[in-house]
Amino acid sequence: MSTATDTAAATPVAELHALLPTCERFLSGHGPQRPKDVLAALADDTGADEQPDMYGEGELIESFEREIAGLLGKDDAVFMVSGTMAQQIALRIWSERSGRPTFACHPTCHLEGSEQKAYQALHGLRAHLVGNPRALLTLDDLRAVREPLAALLLELPQRHLGGQLPEWDELVAQTAWARGQGIAVHMDGARLWESAPYYGRSYAEVAALFDTVYVSFYKGIGAIAGAALAGPRDVIAEARVWKVRHGGNLIHLYPYVLSARANLRRRLTRFPHYHARALAVARALSAVPGVAVKPDPPQTHMMHVYLRGDRDRLLAEAAAIAREDRVALFRGLGPTDLPGVWSFELAIGDAADALTDAEIESHFRRLMSAAGSI
Amino acid sequence: MSTATDTAAATPVAELHALLPTCERFLSGHGPQRPKDVLAALADDTGADEQPDMYGEGELIESFEREIAGLLGKDDAVFMVSGTMAQQIALRIWSERSGRPTFACHPTCHLEGSEQKAYQALHGLRAHLVGNPRALLTLDDLRAVREPLAALLLELPQRHLGGQLPEWDELVAQTAWARGQGIAVHMDGARLWESAPYYGRSYAEVAALFDTVYVSFYKGIGAIAGAALAGPRDVIAEARVWKVRHGGNLIHLYPYVLSARANLRRRLTRFPHYHARALAVARALSAVPGVAVKPDPPQTHMMHVYLRGDRDRLLAEAAAIAREDRVALFRGLGPTDLPGVWSFELAIGDAADALTDAEIESHFRRLMSAAGSI
Repeated sequence: MSTATDTAAATPVAELHALLPTCERFLSGHGPQRPKDVLAALADDTGADEQPDMYGEGELIESFEREIAGLLGKDDAVFMVSGTMAQQIALRIWSERSGRPTFACHPTCHLEGSEQKAYQALHGLRAHLVGNPRALLTLDDLRAVREPLAALLLELPQRHLGGQLPEWDELVAQTAWARGQGIAVHMDGARLWESAPYYGRSYAEVAALFDTVYVSFYKGIGAIAGAALAGPRDVIAEARVWKVRHGGNLIHLYPYVLSARANLRRRLTRFPHYHARALAVARALSAVPGVAVKPDPPQTHMMHVYLRGDRDRLLAEAAAIAREDRVALFRGLGPTDLPGVWSFELAIGDAADALTDAEIESHFRRLMSAAGSI
Repeated sequence: MSTATDTAAATPVAELHALLPTCERFLSGHGPQRPKDVLAALADDTGADEQPDMYGEGELIESFEREIAGLLGKDDAVFMVSGTMAQQIALRIWSERSGRPTFACHPTCHLEGSEQKAYQALHGLRAHLVGNPRALLTLDDLRAVREPLAALLLELPQRHLGGQLPEWDELVAQTAWARGQGIAVHMDGARLWESAPYYGRSYAEVAALFDTVYVSFYKGIGAIAGAALAGPRDVIAEARVWKVRHGGNLIHLYPYVLSARANLRRRLTRFPHYHARALAVARALSAVPGVAVKPDPPQTHMMHVYLRGDRDRLLAEAAAIAREDRVALFRGLGPTDLPGVWSFELAIGDAADALTDAEIESHFRRLMSAAGSI
């Protein structure tokens, strides 16, 4: 690991990465989660008499599954190790029920870009990509589909669009269109917890538009890992069989279940705060020349932040801020469609509470000034 | 939950189950593992500066994978959430490399009976069942196979045969036969740690007969859950892609990795003791009329125990022993080929250290006497 004075051979991003563990404040996320601390806190949060789950059974896991089903207004829910597993399973079930191999999804869908095409390699499914990769999909996009579909997958919010959400009426229209065609509607709700404040509706009201819903426990909720799939009783019963097949029905899932339970209870009420804070941070960032956010204003806790300037100088200055102020602004900068404009994903969580909007604006003014953008 | 005096409506097995949490000593396993205690101990076993693994990367998980690869004398190893996932992946890889859809395994193989035929439903593989379900497979069984094979799967020891192991020369002959035919050899080493003492060889020497090896961390090792697949570098690299597809490449696997690491270090040297104790317990049990063990003598830490008599009376007396002496002898009794003979699986671990051989024999004499077998 490079130190502050030993940067001759390090790339700017490696230098920044080396400094992140020394930071005390973080713009994104919930702050560092050291395994030793997380596990000790988890032991504290666990009742002395709680018995381990066994292969998906037992009060510890079943009561949490009922809690999630209740929150989402669905008959039943099954705890899964990952969304990758949960969503493939939902789509396989809808495919077998409809006798159709194809599901529709946006081109930036997790199944299309982040799962090594497992839907095809494991389940023999086909993806029909709908809409423009740089924009939310529309009802017109759906109406243009000319292939029988087993299911329509909608991601709320769309992470790769900076966390954009369709307006409520559009969401109602799209899901109604699918149901009118006899197509099951599945929600990639990896960040559903973060979406409900924008709609001003309960999780159950949003989930009611969908047949099956996947939710995650490690993103905004901040648990170690884990996911759930909720839906009709018979679908979830079938999903439990596929959970065995995927190798996800572990003898004990309690580290993830307990972590999900404790953090859900801790943070579920905080999502309106994360959204409000994201709005304030976006205003502070947008005030800095050379900085833009998407969506503007943010609709959830997250946004994409765009920085105009020389990438190496931006990274070097972020490293200087990490070294001098022990503040981590981002982990790296990715390319965008525009030359000379770089981006990072910002997800507001607990950690941003340690920074004022004025401090955030000031750090980015320093950054943009060093990069020659101001 | 039924109490000791409220048994009118309870079945004998439900009555026994209700008493198990009140027991203080256990014939099988490592004793109760309450989540709160396990997580607190795990936090103690973890270094304050250890950083979480991220999607399969990071020193925490990579150093443990190197440790496992080293123990097994293989190029590389990948940590998996389950053996179900690890073994399907190994067989899929060998199938794609050979261009053949079929693997050979014993009829009691985990993939055939305990995974909802995932090898077929997810991977399009076929199982060619070899040998008699009540006996170890033989070289003659293999020579009789008349179908091109991608891989031969051998389980060491065979759990459903009471933990039987082929003799070393037979194992060498079978694996050599497969390799001579250009067939990959995969080990279901769910209980490999328990097998090496019988062979008097290192894990690496046993694993050297195989191309890929799956090992488990929650059975004899006593971790919360988890498994590893070890083998040639290119095969394990490919397995990491399939781990993503299966939904097993979680953002953080550290609860399982840390638990596997701590318990492996704690117990790996104890397996010769478990085997020696299994031999002594088997002698004590065999001395009781109506009791038999398989294999006799045990070859590993485990055995199947057979009890002749009335099932309900055996269960009721086991419940009485649990209630009065707070000793758990077994969790239930399953049917066998013989009418009036029942069986349970006994796996010697740390818990049996709290019972002397004389006590064990005495409890079983009481049991068999109550069941009218003595």
